[in-house]
Amino acid sequence: MVERIGFVGPGIMGRPMALNLLQAGYPVWVYARTPARAVSLAERGASLCPTPRDVGRAADIVITMVSDTSDVEEVLLGDDGVIAGMQEGGLVVDMSTIAPAATRRMAKRFAEQQIAMLDAPVSGGDVGARAGTLSIMVGGDADAYRRMLPLFEVMGSSIVHVGESGAGQVAKVCNQLVVAANIAASADALLFAKAAGVDPAKVREALLGGFAASKVLEVHGQRMLDRNFEPGFKLKLHQKDLRIALEAIADHGLELRCVEAVAAGIQEGVEAGWGEHDTSSVLRVLEGHNGIELA
Amino acid sequence: MVERIGFVGPGIMGRPMALNLLQAGYPVWVYARTPARAVSLAERGASLCPTPRDVGRAADIVITMVSDTSDVEEVLLGDDGVIAGMQEGGLVVDMSTIAPAATRRMAKRFAEQQIAMLDAPVSGGDVGARAGTLSIMVGGDADAYRRMLPLFEVMGSSIVHVGESGAGQVAKVCNQLVVAANIAASADALLFAKAAGVDPAKVREALLGGFAASKVLEVHGQRMLDRNFEPGFKLKLHQKDLRIALEAIADHGLELRCVEAVAAGIQEGVEAGWGEHDTSSVLRVLEGHNGIELA
Repeated sequence: MVERIGFVGPGIMGRPMALNLLQAGYPVWVYARTPARAVSLAERGASLCPTPRDVGRAADIVITMVSDTSDVEEVLLGDDGVIAGMQEGGLVVDMSTIAPAATRRMAKRFAEQQIAMLDAPVSGGDVGARAGTLSIMVGGDADAYRRMLPLFEVMGSSIVHVGESGAGQVAKVCNQLVVAANIAASADALLFAKAAGVDPAKVREALLGGFAASKVLEVHGQRMLDRNFEPGFKLKLHQKDLRIALEAIADHGLELRCVEAVAAGIQEGVEAGWGEHDTSSVLRVLEGHNGIELA
Repeated sequence: MVERIGFVGPGIMGRPMALNLLQAGYPVWVYARTPARAVSLAERGASLCPTPRDVGRAADIVITMVSDTSDVEEVLLGDDGVIAGMQEGGLVVDMSTIAPAATRRMAKRFAEQQIAMLDAPVSGGDVGARAGTLSIMVGGDADAYRRMLPLFEVMGSSIVHVGESGAGQVAKVCNQLVVAANIAASADALLFAKAAGVDPAKVREALLGGFAASKVLEVHGQRMLDRNFEPGFKLKLHQKDLRIALEAIADHGLELRCVEAVAAGIQEGVEAGWGEHDTSSVLRVLEGHNGIELA
């Protein structure tokens, strides 16, 4: 039996993810807050629903891919939410990036109705979403994970069952803080090279061959050299993810100096008006402070 | 004609590098401040010299691999230094990590005697030195680079001619600050996962599949999980490299927040007595601040 798939939130990330599921042969029911966003999916055979509740009624598995904790709470638990339509034995998979504590609370609420919930945030950006090569970090019950795995394999190329409910979001917090630190460090390094009269492109090339190698230096380092600040991954979303990270870190009574330093740079970038630009715009904050430009 | 190679500084890094040159068929003359360190090279056919000057007299190309700027100045330009023995047309290749400004000064001094000098610091640690898979960042004249390339290819697997004299050291500054930021961010991430009740090993695995992937998370992340603080690369040497980085950054009037935050963690680790341990000991500084242990 082919599972019937619901998809709530076909945005920059969600639309190509839903499209990949359609192309893999799954029947898909979609809810979009902005219905125009779902037109291209309807043209490929998706059914459009007027509310998340209708998606829940139609589907065996509902995937959500929206912006923030409050959006997930609304589409899942609101009056017209998925929970109001879904039957026992259903599975909810939230692939948004939200607070680990909130995802655990929601999973408990669904469990009361015999509905399983996985948290499965992703890394890899819109490029990874289109190519079906996302990295997917999964928290929740092992049976639910196994049920969902064939669908994860349509959307991603690195899929790790990190642990119990919330573990996927915890891994995503870790992911976003490591990415932010790498962006800050790449900007620092390339701008220093420029100031020292050395070709930053050659420095990037040299560093990629050694212990300084990272996916961020490879991808965002090249964006910085090209001054290509088209998102990609929007700075304001990285700011949102780091707010979640800093809150979760504080919840556990931790003080992590490196995260705080890099979060400040992202905050300044948003305040400077680059929230809709790529997160590599952190470079421009640094350029402003130091009065030089990379390229 | 096979070039005669001089090697000054057969330490943890230098000895396996010199050994690889011997095994590739080059005749090698060695000077070691602590002669016992050169015994294993002599057993493989290297000639031992009593001073760097004698190495300069015997060799066409002299490689130096010592600890800090003042050591390089002494073995190259001191009374018994390489410069006192070397003939016109010789080539000096400093593979130590030292201040970019100092290497430029030394290259000018050698140029007055028609001796070329390259700066060619490396990344990859003792593992890379033994395996001949170092990343080598080269600054200096293109003809000298081409002359040295066959030897670089014996010692390394990623060799980049970054630019003119000093450019190799500038790239190494960039390398060390990116590595330090990655170590700090990896420690932050893994310790947060632990505090949040999630398996840090699973988090590392998940992150390596996405945009947070880095060589440091792979290698040093595993060291942290294993609590294996055997060097590797000593914390006190990373401290030295970041001192060079911070001085060079200040020389150019730059303020790079991320570097300063991570340098502080390394400084604290050295003060706590872990200078002889691996640079991943930065984790232990963070553990101390937060009153928890990763594993």
